[in-house]
Amino acid sequence: MDQARNLPDGNDEIQKAVAFSKEYVDNFRTIFPNIIDEALSKICYLDSWNIRNRIKEMTEYYTLEKKPMLGELMLYAYAMLEDNEVWKEEKRHQAYLLASVIEMGASYFLFTDDIQDDGKTRCGKVCWHLLPNVGTLAINDACMLRSFIQEILQQNFPEPLFYKITKFVNKIFFIAATGQHVDITLARDRNFDNFTMKCYCKMSEMKTAFPFIEVPIIFALILSNKATEESMQQIHNICVDMGVLIQIQNDITDFYDYEGLTKSSTDIQKGKCSWLAVKALELSNEDQRCIFEECYGSWDPTHVHKIRELYKELKLPQLLVQEKEARYETFFRKINELPPVCVPDVNFYQKLFKLIKNTRI
Amino acid sequence: MDQARNLPDGNDEIQKAVAFSKEYVDNFRTIFPNIIDEALSKICYLDSWNIRNRIKEMTEYYTLEKKPMLGELMLYAYAMLEDNEVWKEEKRHQAYLLASVIEMGASYFLFTDDIQDDGKTRCGKVCWHLLPNVGTLAINDACMLRSFIQEILQQNFPEPLFYKITKFVNKIFFIAATGQHVDITLARDRNFDNFTMKCYCKMSEMKTAFPFIEVPIIFALILSNKATEESMQQIHNICVDMGVLIQIQNDITDFYDYEGLTKSSTDIQKGKCSWLAVKALELSNEDQRCIFEECYGSWDPTHVHKIRELYKELKLPQLLVQEKEARYETFFRKINELPPVCVPDVNFYQKLFKLIKNTRI
Repeated sequence: MDQARNLPDGNDEIQKAVAFSKEYVDNFRTIFPNIIDEALSKICYLDSWNIRNRIKEMTEYYTLEKKPMLGELMLYAYAMLEDNEVWKEEKRHQAYLLASVIEMGASYFLFTDDIQDDGKTRCGKVCWHLLPNVGTLAINDACMLRSFIQEILQQNFPEPLFYKITKFVNKIFFIAATGQHVDITLARDRNFDNFTMKCYCKMSEMKTAFPFIEVPIIFALILSNKATEESMQQIHNICVDMGVLIQIQNDITDFYDYEGLTKSSTDIQKGKCSWLAVKALELSNEDQRCIFEECYGSWDPTHVHKIRELYKELKLPQLLVQEKEARYETFFRKINELPPVCVPDVNFYQKLFKLIKNTRI
Repeated sequence: MDQARNLPDGNDEIQKAVAFSKEYVDNFRTIFPNIIDEALSKICYLDSWNIRNRIKEMTEYYTLEKKPMLGELMLYAYAMLEDNEVWKEEKRHQAYLLASVIEMGASYFLFTDDIQDDGKTRCGKVCWHLLPNVGTLAINDACMLRSFIQEILQQNFPEPLFYKITKFVNKIFFIAATGQHVDITLARDRNFDNFTMKCYCKMSEMKTAFPFIEVPIIFALILSNKATEESMQQIHNICVDMGVLIQIQNDITDFYDYEGLTKSSTDIQKGKCSWLAVKALELSNEDQRCIFEECYGSWDPTHVHKIRELYKELKLPQLLVQEKEARYETFFRKINELPPVCVPDVNFYQKLFKLIKNTRI
């Protein structure tokens, strides 16, 4: 992480970006409900009061409980990319709308993931689908939420911006659902031959790098009218390491949570294709692989304990530190190899790194 | 139904429309998979063979088991509305694509409705979500299916057609989900004060008239470049009676199915807001209402029997015949009141009526 320490401490551009995104974050609990109310009031074919109320309730249920990190990242990136229009009222409003749409999209996947993953609580609340007036209607709610997101875009973005955004939003839903599919089927099929590092990285790319890092940046690019095939490809190449890093960090947190007070760790029990599982299979000898195959994906505490011992025996926690260093190095090598003139430029990624570094998604 | 018998027997226009839609229906099992394969091969970010296969499998699972009635209706309407372009290859291809997209949209709602409604079989097959490799992943599949539909539109419709279609497709998802929400909550809440004819008609409008009658016609209007606010409003005004009629017919079929061999009737047990339930509440005296409130929405065969006896006592089957006559009359009055020059015109609706009359949706 030496390179990180060598980054410039800050300048006007960073301060502008920080201020712009901070204003949104600080006022989120006012800005977000206003956006929802305004959009709902404009949909003339929703003439039932109950339906409007339901949409408002579900849209805000998780969204208002969290710091809007994805929206923050998008606004931060936008303020850095936009030359001088940031402070124009219309652009600011559109930027806030897109930031809110990203947060709503995240809520969509919390709804569907929690049903599929049998979740109980989320953001300190009972899961949406477990509320007495919800149940399986959560599936229908998710459908309405997705339509509502699309409605907000239609209401606020004229052509050709609408076309670019709506095309990209559809890609987000497609890729995130694909990532979820791979995640669940890998865990369910228990075919450990598929637990490869290549597969893990691909899944992390779809489940984490794309929705949590690329999406906010690409929205910022589209809004600042700087999105081209090349710029999007460049962002993908660079951010993928960042996303895998975050996914690895999540997996490790799951591992250490087991020893904490919360005991919320369930990756081993659910048979998830985690970095630890993949690495363990990569390094195991024949006997160790037998233990893994026998115990992985079981809720029996003895089995869970055996897997955890195997991880320690294989020195995975130590290996993790090396892995993180290597990913950081790749990230910095890639940005240092960028041509002097490109969008986004080296400077952009260095600043972005400062924001993401301490974020736990 | 006297008016129906007075319709012209047929002419060149009808024959052209019949031939155009028949060609699609007759070759559906070749045309549809070709459309799916071609679209899937063009989505470059779906680089996993498994995912493409999954999307193909779920897209075809129900769709290929049914006669594509919605697609047929759309093509029939399109052939009548389009002046001379029908036989141009590009337009024909776009029309086939839209017809297929409607069929895919119908499959989307079969997936989600069956999970929410605890369905067991559909189109003579085990429900998709009950297949061993599906389960709750069906929710994710539905999300991918919706994205896939959007992808097909992006691939094949240039601006400004894409904008019009995508806006309308989103409205379809929104309204159909809203209808499903009302349907399920009315049955679940058991607040019989809400079982009013107004509420029933609104629900039928959203659940049946809109997706099954209006949607195919509006797609035909959009493709023939004749969609305006007025034409869409006119279609809505006229088709709503047709949709309510079909919904009433479905409810009655459910009632008579009970006496048949299949015994698939479940509206009473599930506490559905059916035409029979609404009418029974409308006509009941105090004692009869007590029976209704005590027995409706119960799986106990004695309760079901009591409700069925109440329906007969209130002469609902006879009333139904009157209701159907009245709806037909309203429909014909509305089309006869249309101005001589309007799109679609009287002629269009009369022909369409011939197609829909014998359709059970």
